Amino acid sequence: MKEFSIIESFFKSGRHQRRDVEIGIGDDCAVTNVPEGQSLVVTTDTLVSGVHFPEDTEARAIAHKAIAVNLSDLAAMGAEPAWVSLSLSLPEADEEWLSDFSRGLHEITEYYTVQLIGGDTVKGPLTITITAHGFIPKEQALTRSKARPGDWLYVTGTLGDAGLAFDIITGRKDATPADKEYLLGRLNYPTPRVLAGTTLRRIAHSCIDVSDGLLSDVQHILNASNCGAVIHVDKLPISKPMMDSVELSEALRYALAAGDDYELLFTISEEQKGNLEVALANSNVSATCIGQLNGMSEKLELKFEDEPYHINASGYQHFA
Amino acid sequence: MKEFSIIESFFKSGRHQRRDVEIGIGDDCAVTNVPEGQSLVVTTDTLVSGVHFPEDTEARAIAHKAIAVNLSDLAAMGAEPAWVSLSLSLPEADEEWLSDFSRGLHEITEYYTVQLIGGDTVKGPLTITITAHGFIPKEQALTRSKARPGDWLYVTGTLGDAGLAFDIITGRKDATPADKEYLLGRLNYPTPRVLAGTTLRRIAHSCIDVSDGLLSDVQHILNASNCGAVIHVDKLPISKPMMDSVELSEALRYALAAGDDYELLFTISEEQKGNLEVALANSNVSATCIGQLNGMSEKLELKFEDEPYHINASGYQHFA
Repeated sequence: MKEFSIIESFFKSGRHQRRDVEIGIGDDCAVTNVPEGQSLVVTTDTLVSGVHFPEDTEARAIAHKAIAVNLSDLAAMGAEPAWVSLSLSLPEADEEWLSDFSRGLHEITEYYTVQLIGGDTVKGPLTITITAHGFIPKEQALTRSKARPGDWLYVTGTLGDAGLAFDIITGRKDATPADKEYLLGRLNYPTPRVLAGTTLRRIAHSCIDVSDGLLSDVQHILNASNCGAVIHVDKLPISKPMMDSVELSEALRYALAAGDDYELLFTISEEQKGNLEVALANSNVSATCIGQLNGMSEKLELKFEDEPYHINASGYQHFA
Repeated sequence: MKEFSIIESFFKSGRHQRRDVEIGIGDDCAVTNVPEGQSLVVTTDTLVSGVHFPEDTEARAIAHKAIAVNLSDLAAMGAEPAWVSLSLSLPEADEEWLSDFSRGLHEITEYYTVQLIGGDTVKGPLTITITAHGFIPKEQALTRSKARPGDWLYVTGTLGDAGLAFDIITGRKDATPADKEYLLGRLNYPTPRVLAGTTLRRIAHSCIDVSDGLLSDVQHILNASNCGAVIHVDKLPISKPMMDSVELSEALRYALAAGDDYELLFTISEEQKGNLEVALANSNVSATCIGQLNGMSEKLELKFEDEPYHINASGYQHFA
């Protein structure tokens, strides 16, 4: 199977054709239009087999996750997703694998009404790079740098599930079949908080997605905003399958230090606290207040029931 | 060296800050603005070590080429380049390599006043994916599909140099030191025909860049436009270093079948033939008429001094 027929067979015929795409797959470039009054929001994330997912991960999950982690970055800026480009490096053109991969890709892009507008298919080690494009009304992008002392720190969903799932896959932990299914779903089919992100535009002061782990990602906000924070680890949102499977101290370690959660971590002022619940009611996800920001430059304190709490771990870092 | 410090040290501080970039590297996404009346043009190309360039290629050349091949795709649509995203998969964080790579990247992006707006650095086999963004006035994009019977077929620059250079590197061919230097420059530091591309907007009917080889790329125009063509191989533009180094029949084979030239192949009507020379005078590149299109659906004929010419070769194809 040649490169051109791979693109033709598996990626060209997305069922969802957006009106803002003038020229899609099949020419040297795509040509698209950004709506008036909106800025373009762009992000790129790469997944490498054996680094970002185990080598035997199913192709449908790899495609889902590659798109989801990019939509999660768009969500963290408050952007509405629009188009994605795919670069797929493959050791061989395995038609069954490609068929599963393209199914995963079409499922998630259709769900979010996102269109695949182009890409590249090359022979090489299994690596997937997605560049995702979205829109945000001018000057409304959420960033890491506008948190203020006194802001409340929130996180969507639950934390640590993907980290525990990874340890289950690699045989270091176990869980009941039902819990395992839930946890593996969190690892392999993460949900980008797209609607929560757009909802937070006018509410949050700052936002980031939790991809490297809570401790690592909250520090990005603290550094960029020159604030400190106290996190009450007893308030961290932990799923029931996690609570069923490990001791509390371990659950907290997963919630603080494991990556791959793709929840949104954001800060809001005291005045917006009341509006938040109403605003998020339609976004299909809960949000939990886990701490507060202060003026202690870049310093993060952990507390458990108001006592200092220590943990020897940090987020995932390449080349560390 | 950690991922965050790689980005900080080598990629964040481009000297060229464009005014249409609201938020650059350092947040979850970049935020940019497309000028009013312009469409956004997007392309993605991946280079894999050992596949798209020999493993011992210098880092500066790898960066140059990764950007150049994407700018070449933009040029083929007539677009003006604006921003690039970089995904860099690296086996290890070698500071000297990274320093050379970032030098190559900054040199070419500054030359074309393009800004690096984001990306991802991951641990993995050496692979570089660039997504390039450019602008074109609405409805003016050059495509592969609007060639017409009777159009004249043109190509910029010279053909085959990169293919010969590759055979020199791998020891299959040789050349004088001066010719070698020229040819290796064509392979490692290709020149995207950016100015020629924007100049052709109102002149050409169709356009593509020659990346897979002339035979392969002209066929894309013929297929998309449902035309045929005659190419006069005796008219193919061959560089003097190529003529010095190999027999004519070999030179023609490189010109027809080798890839990596990144010249523009385009078609224009009889009426525009006169305007072309004037229009290209400022774009720093020549263009040569190599044939003509006809109504013979998708059929390509080669002639040498009006006699049929046969060659047993086609363009580079992954997974072939």
